[in-house]
Amino acid sequence: MSVDGEDIKREHDPPDSPCSVGRTQAERMCLFGEPGKPLVLESGETLGPVEVEYESYGTLNPQKDNAVLVCHALTGDAHAAGWDKGPYGPLREYRRTKPGWWDSMIGPGKAIDTDRHFALCVNVLGSCYGSSGPSSKNPSTGRPWGLSFPIVTVGDWAKLQVAVLDRLGIGTVKTVIGGSMGGQLVLELGLAYPDRFRGLAILSAGHRLTTQGLAFNAVGRNAIIKDPNFRYGDYYDRESPSSGLSVARMLAHITYLSEESMGHKFGRRLRGKEVPDFTLTGIEFEMESYLNHQAQSFVSRYDANSYLYLTRAMDYYDAAAEWGEGSLPKAMSRLRAKTLVVSFSSDWLFPPELIREMVSAMCRSRLPVSYVNIPSRYGHDAFLVETGRVSRLVRSFLQHVG
Amino acid sequence: MSVDGEDIKREHDPPDSPCSVGRTQAERMCLFGEPGKPLVLESGETLGPVEVEYESYGTLNPQKDNAVLVCHALTGDAHAAGWDKGPYGPLREYRRTKPGWWDSMIGPGKAIDTDRHFALCVNVLGSCYGSSGPSSKNPSTGRPWGLSFPIVTVGDWAKLQVAVLDRLGIGTVKTVIGGSMGGQLVLELGLAYPDRFRGLAILSAGHRLTTQGLAFNAVGRNAIIKDPNFRYGDYYDRESPSSGLSVARMLAHITYLSEESMGHKFGRRLRGKEVPDFTLTGIEFEMESYLNHQAQSFVSRYDANSYLYLTRAMDYYDAAAEWGEGSLPKAMSRLRAKTLVVSFSSDWLFPPELIREMVSAMCRSRLPVSYVNIPSRYGHDAFLVETGRVSRLVRSFLQHVG
Repeated sequence: MSVDGEDIKREHDPPDSPCSVGRTQAERMCLFGEPGKPLVLESGETLGPVEVEYESYGTLNPQKDNAVLVCHALTGDAHAAGWDKGPYGPLREYRRTKPGWWDSMIGPGKAIDTDRHFALCVNVLGSCYGSSGPSSKNPSTGRPWGLSFPIVTVGDWAKLQVAVLDRLGIGTVKTVIGGSMGGQLVLELGLAYPDRFRGLAILSAGHRLTTQGLAFNAVGRNAIIKDPNFRYGDYYDRESPSSGLSVARMLAHITYLSEESMGHKFGRRLRGKEVPDFTLTGIEFEMESYLNHQAQSFVSRYDANSYLYLTRAMDYYDAAAEWGEGSLPKAMSRLRAKTLVVSFSSDWLFPPELIREMVSAMCRSRLPVSYVNIPSRYGHDAFLVETGRVSRLVRSFLQHVG
Repeated sequence: MSVDGEDIKREHDPPDSPCSVGRTQAERMCLFGEPGKPLVLESGETLGPVEVEYESYGTLNPQKDNAVLVCHALTGDAHAAGWDKGPYGPLREYRRTKPGWWDSMIGPGKAIDTDRHFALCVNVLGSCYGSSGPSSKNPSTGRPWGLSFPIVTVGDWAKLQVAVLDRLGIGTVKTVIGGSMGGQLVLELGLAYPDRFRGLAILSAGHRLTTQGLAFNAVGRNAIIKDPNFRYGDYYDRESPSSGLSVARMLAHITYLSEESMGHKFGRRLRGKEVPDFTLTGIEFEMESYLNHQAQSFVSRYDANSYLYLTRAMDYYDAAAEWGEGSLPKAMSRLRAKTLVVSFSSDWLFPPELIREMVSAMCRSRLPVSYVNIPSRYGHDAFLVETGRVSRLVRSFLQHVG
């Protein structure tokens, strides 16, 4: 398991299944390319032109009112459903054998029913999956940006998502939905563009990280930055800081699971032996082996600089500070959409207590909010794992939004 | 805060205070030095001679029945109370300005009252604070052992503690007490030598690590091992893997605290500014600054190899497997001593649920066990922070043991 769904064991609908969106092909658009009209970022810096990668499934109806915007998590991408046609390229090789990260939710007859909806997923700024980011070429130098890429925030991502909607001619979006970092983006879209979304569905995410979340992100970034191959982000033509990135990923991975799920899946089981080898540097426990495996597969598909940018954006996100001068109820009073909030009992990265703070603040403004805390042992990852329960909730929420 | 008490803000009794054990001087003994009689380790390897560092406070009475053995935690040492006389040497410089790690508990009139007790603290095998370990010289090569030092376990530590008692002529110990890794050692001593201890006091520790605990240790060791300066443990005459060790420490430190204490102490406060600098590699939040500071001070006083050895020993510890063929009640039925077990409500490294499993197993054998779960926001570190409550419990437990 992992917040990008990489490891979730499930039956995949093959591309020719009637429930699959089939073979997919990412699209690109170039925004803020007009001279003098760059994207103005929250940091005060500007960026333009901005490349954006997105995928869509289903058909936009003539009234253009059936769009469902799907927001991906930290290490996710625009490839939310179906099977990528390729070509895959360096960081996308993993797509050869796996469907999109939320394939269980998006497709004909699924919760986000593409027979009725136009599902759209846009890769965030700073990522390494097609939208402009530190690994993209800086047009003014012809070399990868590296750390000269400007700092991006959840607010900047929201701006870009809306710019994509504008370009596609979509005025009002039926519902925007996402989990984890994607859920932060959903909330921000609802706050920054209250009249643009009729429905918000926020899963496993709150109005800010916990202090522990800030701390874990800091450790992960430290591991990357201290890797001698990091070279202040300028590593694209040499070895990448994969050791640091793998440590960051192992750590993050623990925060996506729960003691209950890890205990159930691995416990203290040794890896392929009955008695320990007594080794410090080798693998003894299944748990270690699993984390190592996850980290190895991750470093082959993700860019360390993007990891820095996106975790920092999560750090900065604080809806109360941004929209309510520190008051969460004041911030939440900006919302206009019907809202669904889902937490999971064993999620300790965005724990139910934190999410309930947000829901309470929404309730104080008498917003039409439905809140469900799903009992689950799958921790933060549950939003990707508890497919059945999440599907039922999302399906009926979309009906309710109408 | 930290499990070695490094950062705990408290009034220190100065060396001339009537409540302080005053100026202290570590002692050394050499054990298992006789040819053909080495220490036989759980891994099957042997070690001898073995150097042991220890400190003692108070006076052993003529009956030799007033000894209280104190077991230190992961990064602790034999210097449990008072003010080290020095000389300090490389890894001990921090002692110049700080008393022993449990000075709040040990001294004239304190919970472990040195007017009545002979308190003894022995540095564990594999540490870097005086007892034989990877940074000690291998007598057969004249060079530091590095990773050729044999793997040690909690069971091996217990053997060595008892060898020290034997050498000091102490038969039965009144009580052995320790927290965290020290608490694991207390349990093991009670199981391996049931008739040697009249009292066991186990704080913030259980019969095994959680699966999450195994996972965090694996990530910490990975950070060290992947540091290019690690050189498979052979770094003593060059730069040490301090980057890896600092990442391991930052991570471990998070597990010693709790969301509540971190939220209360740091929250989302920025470090010395009102608005963020928008930096990826610099410090934005107080929380980051604190972790960095902790890591920096730690790497100047601890050896990376020792960190590998001691965390691995914690991993391996499984009282049920070792003493009960997998059955915890069976293992616990070996115990003979009066026992005090203390957990702390917000400890998630050794969570109360895990500790209660152990206590339940003890109760099934109708052992004289007292269990207290102290409500505290200080997480795993609480056993070092909640001085008042812990002191009262320990004081009355020692009276009860008599």
